[in-house]
Amino acid sequence: VFIVSETKDLDTLLSRLLKIISELGGKPVVIVGTGGGIFKYNTEITKRLGMQLQREDEMECLITGLDFLISKIPGEVFSYDERLSEPFRSSHTCDIKYPYLLVNIGSGVSIVKVFSRTNFERIGGSSIGGGTLWGLLSLLTRAQSFDEMLRLSEKGDNRNVDMLVGDIYGCGYNRIGLKGTAIASSLGKLFRVNDVKSTTTACGEENPLGSGKGFSDEDISRSLLYAVSNNIGQIAYLEARQHNIQNIYFGGSFIGGSHEQTIRTLSYAIRFWSHGEKQAYFLRHEGYLGALGAFLKGMK
Amino acid sequence: VFIVSETKDLDTLLSRLLKIISELGGKPVVIVGTGGGIFKYNTEITKRLGMQLQREDEMECLITGLDFLISKIPGEVFSYDERLSEPFRSSHTCDIKYPYLLVNIGSGVSIVKVFSRTNFERIGGSSIGGGTLWGLLSLLTRAQSFDEMLRLSEKGDNRNVDMLVGDIYGCGYNRIGLKGTAIASSLGKLFRVNDVKSTTTACGEENPLGSGKGFSDEDISRSLLYAVSNNIGQIAYLEARQHNIQNIYFGGSFIGGSHEQTIRTLSYAIRFWSHGEKQAYFLRHEGYLGALGAFLKGMK
Repeated sequence: VFIVSETKDLDTLLSRLLKIISELGGKPVVIVGTGGGIFKYNTEITKRLGMQLQREDEMECLITGLDFLISKIPGEVFSYDERLSEPFRSSHTCDIKYPYLLVNIGSGVSIVKVFSRTNFERIGGSSIGGGTLWGLLSLLTRAQSFDEMLRLSEKGDNRNVDMLVGDIYGCGYNRIGLKGTAIASSLGKLFRVNDVKSTTTACGEENPLGSGKGFSDEDISRSLLYAVSNNIGQIAYLEARQHNIQNIYFGGSFIGGSHEQTIRTLSYAIRFWSHGEKQAYFLRHEGYLGALGAFLKGMK
Repeated sequence: VFIVSETKDLDTLLSRLLKIISELGGKPVVIVGTGGGIFKYNTEITKRLGMQLQREDEMECLITGLDFLISKIPGEVFSYDERLSEPFRSSHTCDIKYPYLLVNIGSGVSIVKVFSRTNFERIGGSSIGGGTLWGLLSLLTRAQSFDEMLRLSEKGDNRNVDMLVGDIYGCGYNRIGLKGTAIASSLGKLFRVNDVKSTTTACGEENPLGSGKGFSDEDISRSLLYAVSNNIGQIAYLEARQHNIQNIYFGGSFIGGSHEQTIRTLSYAIRFWSHGEKQAYFLRHEGYLGALGAFLKGMK
């Protein structure tokens, strides 16, 4: 039996393990575990189950699983480009090009340079990740789950809460290459609402706040999703540029379920910052990389 | 008369200009303006004052002022290192080394590579800046002003709301070089409070949430100040590394008033990411760079 664990609380973890063991009804069992919870609660788990866990390094499992999927499963990898009539595009070959970058977005972000299936290095990361987005939105909006937050964000318009370059300068700031529609400050309108009240800008565009709208959960959700995704995409690009890497794979619970808006923002960020020179990729079996890796490592 | 403008609303801007003109009592006056408001409201201002403004490019003014201060005023530039008994350290020479980086943090962030006093390029930026921090904290806390937010953050403990590496793994994650005290996810505890409830970790440290504390305004303020400052420092470092630049000057309203915590976090971020190879600098006359630059340009 192989199990992979996110940072679940001890009770959830134990009940899952006990359920699996009881379903096997006395057959000999090996539990291969990875992820934070398995390490953090190792003592308690061993005591309660009366057996040792075979613990595998989380990052090694992740890379092993990822590398297997990229190199062996045709159609596993896909990209996104909203300018195409069919934005999702699957790759039908399995050509893997080393080194590549894995950007794993869970509560936080790890950026890993992968030289081969067994050789990798964590070259960077960020503390502004899924946990930051979920934490803020759980306080700021009525959303009770991450899915609900994503649904809210789909209906929102970030321009109601983000301060755009056009809100500051009237139009774009051409001297330094900023369009009027570029986001100058994420959520920048929340605090400065008095400064941007009803007015027609020098471009003749109506300021969205002029309509008397307040700050909706939808608008705030969309703005924060943009801010976090774009920030991660930017840092990933900056690392890829420094290390002269072309292919960037995004994984982790933040993009689990292939939420289109998240994938679009990450893809756009890579295209925008790299001027189209670097490519963001995603995986159909995202969410199972660590478990698959633990399985493959356990096989050996 | 020279005036420089932040993105003020039209009424504030007009009343400031009319006050200056009336104080001069009919003497001939030239108004040199820069900043967003001067461009955005040019038509209205010209109409109300009955005179043309001499408009100067904001970024050019900023660089002109900055470059003058760095190269001409001994003691203008200072650095911060909390490991020293006197953390603030002034530079008493005026040696300027091109190219350098200006990281201007207002509502948003601009990163400018400066080749000389008149030659520069905006090479990057971020929409997660002062406006994002202020906007979020104005919704999340009782603070009514930016100063109040900073005071709150001084009393906070970010470990109550941030998810640390140790919260996930029990201890550090040595395989990938992460200490247990590193912030894995900024504000990551807000959402996952049920997962990290009262427990002693595998390191034997008491989990701060175990004490039954809620999320205080102070803790949230400190966490967000850390998250935003560290993120800006990281992006600035990544740009400096790519462009092989050693000296990074931070300016803008975000660090106006030389708030020690902001300066410490930015300095720490540069030192941490660059392994001490790059240096963060700050300016005593931050807040007057654009006005000074407009003055110098107007003199010509």
